[in-house]
Amino acid sequence: MTNTQDYEFYMDKALELAKKARAKDEVPVGAVIVRDGKIIASAFNKRQNRRVATYHAEILAIEKACKKVKDFRLNGCTIFVTLEPCVMCMGAIINARIETLVFGAGINKDNTLSSKEIAERAGLNHNLKIVSGIRAKKCSMLVSEYFSQKRN
Amino acid sequence: MTNTQDYEFYMDKALELAKKARAKDEVPVGAVIVRDGKIIASAFNKRQNRRVATYHAEILAIEKACKKVKDFRLNGCTIFVTLEPCVMCMGAIINARIETLVFGAGINKDNTLSSKEIAERAGLNHNLKIVSGIRAKKCSMLVSEYFSQKRN
Repeated sequence: MTNTQDYEFYMDKALELAKKARAKDEVPVGAVIVRDGKIIASAFNKRQNRRVATYHAEILAIEKACKKVKDFRLNGCTIFVTLEPCVMCMGAIINARIETLVFGAGINKDNTLSSKEIAERAGLNHNLKIVSGIRAKKCSMLVSEYFSQKRN
Repeated sequence: MTNTQDYEFYMDKALELAKKARAKDEVPVGAVIVRDGKIIASAFNKRQNRRVATYHAEILAIEKACKKVKDFRLNGCTIFVTLEPCVMCMGAIINARIETLVFGAGINKDNTLSSKEIAERAGLNHNLKIVSGIRAKKCSMLVSEYFSQKRN
């Protein structure tokens, strides 16, 4: 999968999941895992409601995918996430040998580890392809609206 | 908790768990989470047997601890791990706001992200105290013996 239309198709699915998270008052992030053009797992952030620090959309989707394919290696899989993954989720994506990461909105913070640097320096012999900026505006709007509502 | 004897006591518990992992032909890593001098959760690596990429000792212990205290924040907790955590587990430790990380054997690989650098650059306003080298020899022996047996 290498064309923008495909990327947008699956990112829209991830966006739908992010909106489900928002409806449950969670930070709106959604993730979809695709292999051979088929969605094999998807999830949204459940940290707040389930009260578990690791229940980010990506971790939950990776666990579902592993259980589905009965393998801790998700070779040939692409993960679509509405937001650039945190350190934990980047580590999980790399540990699972996911082939491609496609994310929507990027996180730019001074001196914070980017997904690119984490992928390069995780210490595993695994080349993760990273594509960013797919439906970026929609993805970031969801998150910024969520936090501005929280502040009010 | 700041004295070496305490550190060694809990690291020995983590070592026992690492040996349970070894008995199940898993990479021998164990983790114990302590709050107010009480072990609130513990786990060993189950990645191979359960076939889930995220089932490292630390992730499993953090999930158990969160469920036990019904909070995604593990304030005031110390995690003891026999091996320096990978990127994913470091991210989880930071996301969970664990106060102190005590690990046994370090991982030194050129240009690979160390636990220290990850803690400093994870982008969360959280100061993780890191103590290393507790029962280091025992912890690293377990892992190196496991891999040398695998090679034979």
